[in-house]
Amino acid sequence: MNPIAEHTLHLDPKVRQEARNRLLSAKGHLEGILKMLEGEPYCVDVLKQIKAVQGALDKVGDLVLKSHLEHHVASAAQRGDTDELVAELMEVLKYR
Amino acid sequence: MNPIAEHTLHLDPKVRQEARNRLLSAKGHLEGILKMLEGEPYCVDVLKQIKAVQGALDKVGDLVLKSHLEHHVASAAQRGDTDELVAELMEVLKYR
Amino acid sequence: MNPIAEHTLHLDPKVRQEARNRLLSAKGHLEGILKMLEGEPYCVDVLKQIKAVQGALDKVGDLVLKSHLEHHVASAAQRGDTDELVAELMEVLKYR
Amino acid sequence: MNPIAEHTLHLDPKVRQEARNRLLSAKGHLEGILKMLEGEPYCVDVLKQIKAVQGALDKVGDLVLKSHLEHHVASAAQRGDTDELVAELMEVLKYR
Repeated sequence: MNPIAEHTLHLDPKVRQEARNRLLSAKGHLEGILKMLEGEPYCVDVLKQIKAVQGALDKVGDLVLKSHLEHHVASAAQRGDTDELVAELMEVLKYR
Repeated sequence: MNPIAEHTLHLDPKVRQEARNRLLSAKGHLEGILKMLEGEPYCVDVLKQIKAVQGALDKVGDLVLKSHLEHHVASAAQRGDTDELVAELMEVLKYR
Repeated sequence: MNPIAEHTLHLDPKVRQEARNRLLSAKGHLEGILKMLEGEPYCVDVLKQIKAVQGALDKVGDLVLKSHLEHHVASAAQRGDTDELVAELMEVLKYR
Repeated sequence: MNPIAEHTLHLDPKVRQEARNRLLSAKGHLEGILKMLEGEPYCVDVLKQIKAVQGALDKVGDLVLKSHLEHHVASAAQRGDTDELVAELMEVLKYR
């Protein structure tokens, strides 16, 4: 359980819904790759499909990140938890 | 249908099996995030889970890429399809 | 001239100094690659050196980003420029 | 000294020249950022410039990688050094 989460910094419900929809679609895409791997696919076709799923996940990450910046990081100085929020954000942005 | 694929440059069966196993595990992880989004998760916890799935997909991509280099690209000069293989590989490596 | 910059959201002087030092070192590294290219280097040795410089630039970017989050983004709600700051930050984080 | 380099797998001279030109331009860009840091720049302007240099280095890396794939990796099966070339290439492509 994340201590900051208990401050009720929950993900915005509208963003949560869009993230769900996009992840469901990414899951469908992943299932397509699994089906592809039951046959005899060409390596590069598999690589392209993996890359497409990665792109979809990047978009979900961007949605969540933008919402987090707007709703939580931008008001950190008011709440007094800037150091914690910035430290954990930097960690999650590494090599993203 | 990829024209080079018809040259029967199929993904190595052992790699195909390992890729399948890892993608099944990534799919399970994705389902976990979907479940998480039914509740009221903290943004950064969602970002961390998405990043973990990305890391798993990176590993599958690496497996397939390594196999492709070993089994297909390394013998391209012998087959005479170097230009096609390198062009499509560069495309798939962009921003990866 | 960036309109937000005029709000005097300048880069923190200590971070600016560390960024300078690290960029000077990256520049020296780059000059080393240029020297290497006067000879007959092996491709992969060049790739490794480029990757090292990229890593050094990533670290400078992280320094500046962390400082920006702490000193400017975290107080955006107080100043009332959250939307602008988040929009430009998302732009710069794309594919980073 | 890289043992494979001694097999005289040198970087193609034309690519070497283009890489040099692009690295010189990247170096000029880096010097511009250093100059910028003597003043009081806005964080995001610094981040954008660092990102631009990274993009320029990515392009140099792509040039060298493409040449390496065409001239060395594609003929690895003929020379019999596939395993070494693929291993070192996978290493350099990690997190690129």
